[in-house]
Amino acid sequence: MTKRKNILFIMFDQLRHDYLSCGGHPHLHTPHMDSIAEKGVRFSRCYVQSPICGSSRMSFYTGRYASSHGAQWNGFPLKVGEQTIGDHLRKLGMSSWLVGKTHMAVDHEGMERLGITHDSIVGARVSECGFDIYARDDGLWAEGPDGFYDHRRSPYNEYLKSKGYEGENPWHDYANAGIDEEGNMASAWFTSHSSKPANIHEQDSETPWLTREVISFIESRKGNDEPWMCHASYIKPHWPYIVPAPYHDMYGGNQIQPVVRHPAEREDPHPVYEQFMNNAVGKAFSRDEVREAVMPAYMGLIKQCDDQMGVLFKYLEDTDQMKDTMIVLTSDHGDYLGDHWLGEKSLFHEQSAKVPMIIYDPSPEADAARGTVIDEPTEAIDLAATFVEFAGGKVPNHIIEGRSLIPFLRGEKPEEWRDYAISEFDYSATPMAVNLGLKPKDARLFMVTDKRWKFMHAEGQKDGVPFPPMLFDLENDPDELRDLGRSDQHDDILGLMYERLGKWGRRNAQRTTKSDDDIDNMRAKSRRKGIVLGVHTEDEVDPEITVKFRGPAKPLPANDG
Amino acid sequence: MTKRKNILFIMFDQLRHDYLSCGGHPHLHTPHMDSIAEKGVRFSRCYVQSPICGSSRMSFYTGRYASSHGAQWNGFPLKVGEQTIGDHLRKLGMSSWLVGKTHMAVDHEGMERLGITHDSIVGARVSECGFDIYARDDGLWAEGPDGFYDHRRSPYNEYLKSKGYEGENPWHDYANAGIDEEGNMASAWFTSHSSKPANIHEQDSETPWLTREVISFIESRKGNDEPWMCHASYIKPHWPYIVPAPYHDMYGGNQIQPVVRHPAEREDPHPVYEQFMNNAVGKAFSRDEVREAVMPAYMGLIKQCDDQMGVLFKYLEDTDQMKDTMIVLTSDHGDYLGDHWLGEKSLFHEQSAKVPMIIYDPSPEADAARGTVIDEPTEAIDLAATFVEFAGGKVPNHIIEGRSLIPFLRGEKPEEWRDYAISEFDYSATPMAVNLGLKPKDARLFMVTDKRWKFMHAEGQKDGVPFPPMLFDLENDPDELRDLGRSDQHDDILGLMYERLGKWGRRNAQRTTKSDDDIDNMRAKSRRKGIVLGVHTEDEVDPEITVKFRGPAKPLPANDG
Repeated sequence: MTKRKNILFIMFDQLRHDYLSCGGHPHLHTPHMDSIAEKGVRFSRCYVQSPICGSSRMSFYTGRYASSHGAQWNGFPLKVGEQTIGDHLRKLGMSSWLVGKTHMAVDHEGMERLGITHDSIVGARVSECGFDIYARDDGLWAEGPDGFYDHRRSPYNEYLKSKGYEGENPWHDYANAGIDEEGNMASAWFTSHSSKPANIHEQDSETPWLTREVISFIESRKGNDEPWMCHASYIKPHWPYIVPAPYHDMYGGNQIQPVVRHPAEREDPHPVYEQFMNNAVGKAFSRDEVREAVMPAYMGLIKQCDDQMGVLFKYLEDTDQMKDTMIVLTSDHGDYLGDHWLGEKSLFHEQSAKVPMIIYDPSPEADAARGTVIDEPTEAIDLAATFVEFAGGKVPNHIIEGRSLIPFLRGEKPEEWRDYAISEFDYSATPMAVNLGLKPKDARLFMVTDKRWKFMHAEGQKDGVPFPPMLFDLENDPDELRDLGRSDQHDDILGLMYERLGKWGRRNAQRTTKSDDDIDNMRAKSRRKGIVLGVHTEDEVDPEITVKFRGPAKPLPANDG
Repeated sequence: MTKRKNILFIMFDQLRHDYLSCGGHPHLHTPHMDSIAEKGVRFSRCYVQSPICGSSRMSFYTGRYASSHGAQWNGFPLKVGEQTIGDHLRKLGMSSWLVGKTHMAVDHEGMERLGITHDSIVGARVSECGFDIYARDDGLWAEGPDGFYDHRRSPYNEYLKSKGYEGENPWHDYANAGIDEEGNMASAWFTSHSSKPANIHEQDSETPWLTREVISFIESRKGNDEPWMCHASYIKPHWPYIVPAPYHDMYGGNQIQPVVRHPAEREDPHPVYEQFMNNAVGKAFSRDEVREAVMPAYMGLIKQCDDQMGVLFKYLEDTDQMKDTMIVLTSDHGDYLGDHWLGEKSLFHEQSAKVPMIIYDPSPEADAARGTVIDEPTEAIDLAATFVEFAGGKVPNHIIEGRSLIPFLRGEKPEEWRDYAISEFDYSATPMAVNLGLKPKDARLFMVTDKRWKFMHAEGQKDGVPFPPMLFDLENDPDELRDLGRSDQHDDILGLMYERLGKWGRRNAQRTTKSDDDIDNMRAKSRRKGIVLGVHTEDEVDPEITVKFRGPAKPLPANDG
């Protein structure tokens, strides 16, 4: 008797790996998330495949590297034909549902070319990254003189309006703004307002709203035997940084971690790093007043997220669903918050490219591993493989490039685990690429990291000279403050890293129509279909194979030519 | 007034670059093909992207490397979503028609997943590599105890039956067999029969039949103003090697080129090369009697092809279409024919990976370049780009990885032309991979060649030691007889080749939903849609950008929570 099992795949947006108490934060207590780490396994070296929302998410959802699926920046459509977790799990009888954010952009041109209509089931799933939609809200309802950043309908804005919040965009005017001394909107797009309480009832803010949507989804599955995977995808603690009371002033002073940066980082920096330090966000977060205003809000947002996890997990316990629900807690990337003179994400320091990855597997086989921490390099794309195995399938490793984490969850050491993780960043659409005078194809970065070294290759050149690599010694310089990429003492390490990157570049990522098993089955089968090569005379080959090629000659018809 | 222009894209199968008189053959006279080289441009260093039919053709048809489209072996389906010459040209108002072979395998699973039916126009094109079909015949109607190698209907077999040829498979029994001394079928699957005349009237053999189909296609376009690209795709001089009289005994003795091989090649060879030398075809073609039987047939088949080109070009002249038809003559790969102790294709010696590439451009702008020979490295994928430019389009270089050859055709030197060509070979489905104990993903080879050096990297390992590379000095060893891959004198060249292969491996091949122009247009546009980052106070930013974020605070509704 197999018990039905479900998957609750919870993602936060821009949540740093070290901003949970189980991730090492000394002042931000996150008991609910920690409880999942205690019941499950925490992966302490999990890297996203691209430190930017859209691209990272497409890697999570496809189980493939950014260069493999091609959606390398926010708003780059995931091309029709790419297969997602939803496609793989549906084949195994498990449905895939979205509650929250994906940052998916639709490949309208591809759909039109292939005659796939948006109102068909196939079209709806292709448009939504393979998910069926319970609620989609990407959580960025910014608006400028050229209109909204996101043209969809916002279920969250509709919720606020239904509760009596006024105006066209209460997401901004309430959830993401406070009130200043003169009674004006204090928009959190201006970080000087970040420490103010958001002008909204706490239970109406984004995180509690989404939690209720998730519970409502789970309730809706009652009486339905089909197992489900639910992607509960929160926008927070992503900017705009502001949180309602009482979370807005829970943290301050010594509870704010000291900034991780060093003046030496600004001396003769790598040209690409220099550009990012000098962009608007980098410059802003290098100002003390920005950090001082933002940090309490960022920490408060995480505390609110953790409290909401408490609500969600209590619901699962109360309804006796904890015993058959795999729970994943992760994020699409981190947040520099001023470390390394940077804001946002983008580059590959631990603050940006590493994420929390905590997985609770309810299976009895997982009892041996509960509470363990795995420090092997893991990748976001491993989740897709993990889900397929958890759902009872064989991982299609000709499509999914990640590897199942199930052995780790069950206390086993997988054979030949990877030695290093890969991440990529395509910054072709940014002003930094313009400033560096780069063509789009050259504005790309690649990270290779093992437990000891972190390496970055930058495509492109400056003044005809290829960009140097970056290299950090994670053992002797765990804060990544000293770039050894131009050191002449590290040729062997740099050579090894280029060798690894080369091997990765040659990987077989697009042979998605034939599995390894298919190929094993093909091996040397063509002979029995009459393709007989290297045979000179009839007696050199089994007559059975060539029976169709023997016999009396046929009579020639009359030549009417 | 723009005159309508058409493209006649003629491909032979397994035609060696040096088996035309314009390609340097001293005895095989090919005046008709030569005439196109005289009227056009011959590219003397054109490499296919994979030296095997199916994979090479998918690269020709998509303009993409084999690792990019993923159809890396015969019978690996081209995945739904890959765009082809047909897709690109249709957007420019030019139709794309197939007459002959493609070796396309259909991605049935992908079509089903996306709800694309085979009987729709989209489905028909997806199933046929983007072409509309005038006649498809892949020309390999082999049959063994497990049935036919190819399960389609053969228009050529139907033609033969209509002419009174007997039996179920006259393709084999007549076109590809002679008669032995006892009156039995002398099948050309046995190379001892290759020098016999095929038991068929010459005008009914494959090459003249296809030529008539091509002319019949062109005739069918009369009165239709839509420009067309016609892929006239011949199966010959591909095996089974046999040709009807009078071509079967035109060549022999001194007209057969001496075999290019050396006993030193068999001493301590590269492990992968060794496997190919020791496979059935390699061993067969290393026997003198096999070469002696096959060479007259191979040369006769090419002579027949050339005569049929005479028929076709005369038709174009007689109907005054030469002045508005681009003509391409090429092949999908070469044929070792015993050189280097090998038969067939597969590896990257010039005999296998280099192909004829002759292009006649009827435009007056091309007058300056007629009769020239270009020795820059070119790739099969360049044709797709060339066709798009010839049809009046801008090459979508986020999809097509080849580069237009139009500048060369018009006597111009393109800026920054490539320094090297790339080819790949996936032999995972072969017995050689089994013998080497390789997993499918490791049975892959990569070539990098410039005008001076040819390099091969082999994925995988033997006894825990990675395979060495192969390296040939094309200047001092033009016959590629001395492998320098393990020489310690060539570290710099090997390093350069690995650097080039690494750069190629990092290429941006899958970002097909956004063009470089799209990216230029995206740069820094998000601010005007309200995504305002790195701003601390209201006075740090243009008020127009943030007008939606200013104004009186909104009243909070009653808390009913």
